Amino acid sequence: MLYLIGLGLGDAADITVKGLQAVRSCSRVYLEAYTSILTVGKEALEEYYGKELILADRDLVEQGADEILKDADVTDVAFLVVGDPFGATTHSDLVLRAVSSGIPYRVIHNASIMNAVGCCGLQLYNFGETVSLVFWTDTWRPESFYDKICKNRTAGLHTLCLLDIKVKEQSVENMMRGKKIYEPPRFMTVSQAADQLIQIIQRRRKEGAELGMTEDTVCVGVARLGADDQAIRTATLRQLVSCDLGGPLHSLVVTGRLHPLEVDMLRVNAEPNALDQLLVVDSSTSCS
Amino acid sequence: MLYLIGLGLGDAADITVKGLQAVRSCSRVYLEAYTSILTVGKEALEEYYGKELILADRDLVEQGADEILKDADVTDVAFLVVGDPFGATTHSDLVLRAVSSGIPYRVIHNASIMNAVGCCGLQLYNFGETVSLVFWTDTWRPESFYDKICKNRTAGLHTLCLLDIKVKEQSVENMMRGKKIYEPPRFMTVSQAADQLIQIIQRRRKEGAELGMTEDTVCVGVARLGADDQAIRTATLRQLVSCDLGGPLHSLVVTGRLHPLEVDMLRVNAEPNALDQLLVVDSSTSCS
Repeated sequence: MLYLIGLGLGDAADITVKGLQAVRSCSRVYLEAYTSILTVGKEALEEYYGKELILADRDLVEQGADEILKDADVTDVAFLVVGDPFGATTHSDLVLRAVSSGIPYRVIHNASIMNAVGCCGLQLYNFGETVSLVFWTDTWRPESFYDKICKNRTAGLHTLCLLDIKVKEQSVENMMRGKKIYEPPRFMTVSQAADQLIQIIQRRRKEGAELGMTEDTVCVGVARLGADDQAIRTATLRQLVSCDLGGPLHSLVVTGRLHPLEVDMLRVNAEPNALDQLLVVDSSTSCS
Repeated sequence: MLYLIGLGLGDAADITVKGLQAVRSCSRVYLEAYTSILTVGKEALEEYYGKELILADRDLVEQGADEILKDADVTDVAFLVVGDPFGATTHSDLVLRAVSSGIPYRVIHNASIMNAVGCCGLQLYNFGETVSLVFWTDTWRPESFYDKICKNRTAGLHTLCLLDIKVKEQSVENMMRGKKIYEPPRFMTVSQAADQLIQIIQRRRKEGAELGMTEDTVCVGVARLGADDQAIRTATLRQLVSCDLGGPLHSLVVTGRLHPLEVDMLRVNAEPNALDQLLVVDSSTSCS
């Protein structure tokens, strides 16, 4: 059996009881280590689970699936994923390979950012399509996520923006020299995401394009959701550029039309009176 | 402290380790019992958690919040919610009351249908706005969810349809007589939901309206997601009318534009070759 087990968000104790039982019963346990992270590392998980974990980087999952699935028809193998196994990043390839090899699989679900973000005070069923923001380079500055955010806003919907993670990346130089030297991991912050959005807004404003959002649009920055030291900050996009929400992972929500109950909930995580000012400033956000 | 604890989907063992520790440390534990259910009842949970649970029906949560929050500034109180506390149904009111009473609150997240539905093979970030289908009555047959589904489809997005739950409902007769006699609980099935959608399609076709979906649109019916006996059925809307996915809870997904990898995943839960036939039949679903 192949178990795909969600670890939830936060730390080692966020695994479900069913998930922990499965981990302890498996002969091999892989930890997917390139699409998300918990606030604790591999060693803390190993100690808590009482099991040795095998780190599964992108290469292993994408090219070494046979290794992961080896003997899984006669023994139990666990594949651990931060959040839910079918959350923001799915592991469909691994599942399809298991199915085609006649290996049964079972999913043990957990919270992911896709549903836990509801704790910021915005109703999940008022969210539209989720988007991803990637680190821009000198030559690659995609903007398609911006259009999706605006489309959601036109329909009155909020947008969850997942922020880029770069782990085990090689510099172009090292890659060309064939050196397996990796850059330090990078996690996009709410501040960096807000800055990127503002650059797009400013560029489009210069071009005279219609703007679906502005620097004054109400947004929510969240960090380490589910952890003891989680941070939630409701502010304008402009204000979020200068906010420091601490360590990874961060996500950003761009609001659409706000329901009064949502405003009340957002107020819990905003400075006193700040939200009223924000809602006055942001004429594009109607509060009906 | 007020703990809002998600129980996840499935059975008693789907609570997180952190959640279970919190439940066991609380002096009073409420079980929210009107927006969702697990596959096991209150007694099984009590035995597993080693705690007595107080059933919280809609009346208690909406009118008796003071009772739930009593002394929560000096003792720990848990409020258990199937799925995630901020999943499909939020409990913002309770949180806002706690905040205004100076009672700190903490959320322990878990899987909800809003993210676990990803296991059907459709990518979560390709979902648009979530909709709810309610039981129609002779005089009340709302159709607004249909327009939202079509809007999502136009944008290429899938739609998660949450299906109605009626617990502790009084008949109009008993309500008028002031008799506190309740009807047996009702849970909308995938079959009933598909039938309701087809009635709307047929009515609109007669009116000559443009149809955003048809009886041949590919849909996915899911039941008891996360439980040992979960069921996932990929078929046309028409075929789902006659499918029996067993006991509650059921949900329905109406697909939008399908990615090849999604088609491969859907195939896992469809009859052999069925999906290819479906995709040919459903000319409104492009597979690009």
